[in-house]
This record gives sequence, structure tokens and C-alpha cells, in this order.
Amino acid sequence: MKLPIRELEDLVASAFIAAATTEPNARSVARALVQAEVDGQKGHGLTRVPSYTQQARAGKVDGHAVPEVSTTRSSALMIDALGGFAYPAFDRAIELLPASAGATGIAAAGIMHSHHCGVLGRHVERLSEAGLVALAFANTPDAMAPWCGKRRLFGTNPIAFATPQRNAPPAVVDLALSQVARGKILSAAQNNEPIPEGWATDQDGQPTTDAKKALSGTLLPIGEAKGAALAFMVEVLAVTLTGANFSFEASSFFDDKGGPPGVGQLLVAIDPDAFAGREVFLDRMATLSDAFQDNGDARLPGSRRIALREAAARDGVEIDPRTHEALKAMARSA
Amino acid sequence: MKLPIRELEDLVASAFIAAATTEPNARSVARALVQAEVDGQKGHGLTRVPSYTQQARAGKVDGHAVPEVSTTRSSALMIDALGGFAYPAFDRAIELLPASAGATGIAAAGIMHSHHCGVLGRHVERLSEAGLVALAFANTPDAMAPWCGKRRLFGTNPIAFATPQRNAPPAVVDLALSQVARGKILSAAQNNEPIPEGWATDQDGQPTTDAKKALSGTLLPIGEAKGAALAFMVEVLAVTLTGANFSFEASSFFDDKGGPPGVGQLLVAIDPDAFAGREVFLDRMATLSDAFQDNGDARLPGSRRIALREAAARDGVEIDPRTHEALKAMARSA
Repeated sequence: MKLPIRELEDLVASAFIAAATTEPNARSVARALVQAEVDGQKGHGLTRVPSYTQQARAGKVDGHAVPEVSTTRSSALMIDALGGFAYPAFDRAIELLPASAGATGIAAAGIMHSHHCGVLGRHVERLSEAGLVALAFANTPDAMAPWCGKRRLFGTNPIAFATPQRNAPPAVVDLALSQVARGKILSAAQNNEPIPEGWATDQDGQPTTDAKKALSGTLLPIGEAKGAALAFMVEVLAVTLTGANFSFEASSFFDDKGGPPGVGQLLVAIDPDAFAGREVFLDRMATLSDAFQDNGDARLPGSRRIALREAAARDGVEIDPRTHEALKAMARSA
Repeated sequence: MKLPIRELEDLVASAFIAAATTEPNARSVARALVQAEVDGQKGHGLTRVPSYTQQARAGKVDGHAVPEVSTTRSSALMIDALGGFAYPAFDRAIELLPASAGATGIAAAGIMHSHHCGVLGRHVERLSEAGLVALAFANTPDAMAPWCGKRRLFGTNPIAFATPQRNAPPAVVDLALSQVARGKILSAAQNNEPIPEGWATDQDGQPTTDAKKALSGTLLPIGEAKGAALAFMVEVLAVTLTGANFSFEASSFFDDKGGPPGVGQLLVAIDPDAFAGREVFLDRMATLSDAFQDNGDARLPGSRRIALREAAARDGVEIDPRTHEALKAMARSA
């Protein structure tokens, strides 16, 4: 079945309001989860509602938190998510960064005491919709070892990037630094299937193709030592700089066990007008975009979401009837 | 044979002064090339002297250029390298960014009409020596295709990152986004050896293990689509933002053919004091560094250079006697 985007957002928001979450926070979370669902990022979409609401009920995430913003310098914001959902903290950052970056050329917002931030690319895309080039870095509970290491230290630590274009939606880069998402290994283990070499190690740090052994081991980074070095970089930018919890200190985003994960995130926004100038920037972007034409099947990063959004706006969001029933039951449970 | 660092720098500087380069520019280039040699990055070290001086003599690089700095906003600098060597432009950026970042929390410098910038990690390391967290992005002549593409579009597009530590040298990340450097494929072709799968494609965009075919094809990115997306990001940050030449527009860094490469670079400097505060930052960094202990053979990124520098400071820089003679001949040729 399909539901109109707005109706689905309202339903999801009601499920959160019924789970110890204020209406503004519930709306912010619902908007993000439904957008992820629309954009084909189901791992960050409606599948998260049960675990998020469970964590709000248990107090592992504080559904009442109002993010606290400190403008520490003219280009620097620190946002304390106060153990609440990440999305309201990102909303504040995205609201405030454009004026800062416009005034000084570049600005950054650090977020601490934070939680799972979903599709990182969507946050930078919103900054690009405001005319800015934007970068984001986020840490996640530990999954990868440092290079030549045996034990987990880094999360899958996504990096996201977006850039405005003239007469076209922003181009968006969004990637985790592991070869594959943990979910792929979980599903291989459930189906008793082997995994390809290069995805993971067992608990002794040895390469494995056994999905079950991989689950107690580590995920391997892209590009061997290079991906591990990038994961280190993300750990410093998202955590060391903001005073958040390292990936190896963070509790799970999925269950209600332990204290809040307390991870960190960093958003950086750059005003193209302060460098080569907006017109030069948009001209150069058009040249870069043109260079993707007639080059095999190459497309600008993030292109897939555009057709998916048009379809969802026209036809509604595809939703499993059981998920729909479950959401309605949650929304009634207040 | 070994030469004291300072003596080698003087000799290299003299070789540039003899090749249509001003003394301040020659000193800047010599310092960077000798540092690369000391740090074990020979591909960015003395091997570059013949091609750099040849380009200066031919006017492909302007050895007399004095980089032009515009402070466009309180956190934004644009530096026009005016077709000269990249190092004097980086020197200016590294001199000016700390005050800007200190005042506003974060600052960036874009460099255009630029040239090969050598060890990108060294530039960010210098900013970390001034107490800042720093990022750098540089484009290079085209080598990689976009994902699912056939033709070259991106350079190997390095990313570098450095962070200060308490009572320890900065940790430094520095990596190109191709699986391997082109030099490895060149050397396999010269020895008639095959290359591993996953390094390169032939000129039709098909994967190849034939080193000779790979030379007319493309280098493959780390992490498949992910590395290609990061290369796109670098292209936007280093080029679109600064108004420089894209990788597919840039001439070679190695020969004196064509116009100046005109590539671009972006440096970003962040003051930790403007986010969680310097003491929290240094405490968190110490915790992160400790987490590398007793974890297999893992080490903080960039650790190798430290012992190499100590050895060079104590014993001098190892140099082939023929290279020494060649440098002396160049220095005399004025």
C-alpha cells in the first residue's frame, strides 16, 4: 500500500508522541525517518521506529530534550543534544549555519551527547539547498579495527558532502567507511551463507568468509589502511573536537540497554561566494556535471534519490500493511 | 652518502635559483622537497627536482610568481598562486590561517592557478603544530573515472588531515583516493609484470591485470563507488570552490608540455578551543591515542615519519651520490 508523505509523517510523529517524546521532537524525527524511506534508505527509515520509541520509553534517549546551542565564536557553534534524538540538534545547526557561513565564509557546528543521525547526506543537502557547500562527519558504535589492529575501535563513521548546482538539486555524497553495512553480514548469517573476502574479520582479527564469525569480529574498511585512516579522522572531527563519546565508548543505537550512546557529529558549511564567487562556482559546477555525460553509465553522486522523491510526491510512500498497522497501534498507545 | 638536512636544502634551493626561480620561492620548494625526502615520501622528494626545474625553465611554472592573497571574509582567504609553485602559496595560507581560525573558530584558504603540492599531509601538519585541527583537499591531473564511467575525470585527489596532541607530534592522515599510485603500475609495466585485479582498467573501462594496458586506462578508486564519490567531493572543494582547473583540464605535473596545470587546493583550519575547548580536546585525543595501544600492531596514522625525522636530524639525509652530483651540476648551471 501507499500513503501520502504528509500522512505518513503525521502517523510516525504520533507514534513518537505516544512514546515519551515532545511534539516538536516527534515531528523532527518523523520528518527525517520518512525522508529516508522516500529516498530509498530504508535502513535509516521506518525500520528504526520500534527501536527509537523503545529507547525513548526506557529513557536511553530523552524525547523531551531541547538542544542547547552555544555560539562560541562567529563561525563556531556547539550544540548539546542533551541525550535527545539527533535530528532536533541537526535542525538547529542547519537553521543557524547559513547566516554564520554567509558572514565569515565558513562555519561549523559540533553536536555532542547525540544519537543516531540517520541519513547524514540529507543534513548536508539541506545546507546546500540554502546555497552552501557542506561537509558532515559522524561517529557510530564501534565496528572497525584500526589498520593492523585486532579489536574494534572506530564506528563505520560516515562522511557526507553536498554542493549546490544551478537549476538542479544538490549533488550529494554519503558513505560509511566500512566495505559493507553490518546488516549485509547479519542477513548472510541468518541465511547460512558465506560472505566475500575483504568484508570482515573474526574475533581474532583474521579475515573470514564465515558470516557468523564475522558478527563477533570487525568490519573491514574501504581501501585497507586508507579507510581506517579516514575513520580516525572522523573520530577526531566528530568526537575529540566536540567532547562526545568515542565509538568504542558508545552504546548501541538499536536497543535500550546501557546509557545513552552520546556520540558526536560535526557539520561544516562553506559559502562559495567567499571563495571564487558564486557565479564562478556555479559555472564550474555545470562544467563538472557536464563531464559526467556520455562517460559510460556515470552519474553525479546522489542522483538516485531524485526520481524516488518525485515518485513518492506523486504516488505516496510504499509501506507494508503490517508496518502501517504497527504504527497505528503505537500511535494509539498513548 | 648522507648530507645534513640544511646543506641539502641549500643545494636544492641553488638548483632552483639556477632555474628561473626567485630565492624565496626556491627556498620554499627546497624545504618541501627535502622534508618529503626525510619523511620517506620519495615520490614527492628529490625525484621532482629535474621535472620542476625543467618546468620553471620552460615557463610552465612561473618561478618568479608571488602568491596574491585576498582576505574575502573574516574566515576566508583566496590565494592566487599565479602559475607559480604551490609551496609559496601554502606557506602564505599556513601563515595566515591560525589567526583567522583563532578569531572565528574555523577558517579556510582556497588556492588556485596552482601546481603539484607534494606531501599534502605536511601542510596540515604545520597547521596542527600551530594548535589547529586541519583538513586539506587537492586535485591532480586526471587518472580515475567516475563510478560506472569509462573515461578519466578525477585525479587521484588526495585528502589530508592532522590533529594536535598533548606532548606528542600531530597525528597525520594523508591518502590518495586511488587504490595505488600510478608509479606502481609504471614500474610493473617496465618489468613486464602483471598487476593485481582491482588496481586499474584498460582504455575501454574494462578491468585489467596488464600493466601496459592499464597505463592507457584509468586507476580504480578505493572502495569502488565510495572512493569515486570522495574524489568528486575533492574536485568540488579544491576546484569548483576556488575557480581552478578540473583534473580533466589540468596538464601534467611531470613534463614541460602544455600550459600550467592550474589545479586547486583547499585548506581548512579549526580551533579546538572554539568547540569543546582545548583541554577537553587534548584529553579526548589522549584517550583516543591510548586506544591504539595493545591493539595488534595498530599505530596512530602518520607515526612512521617521526623516527625517520629523528634519524635524518641525527645522521643526515641519505642521498644517492649520482643525485648529489646532478644537484651540484644544476646549482652551478646558473
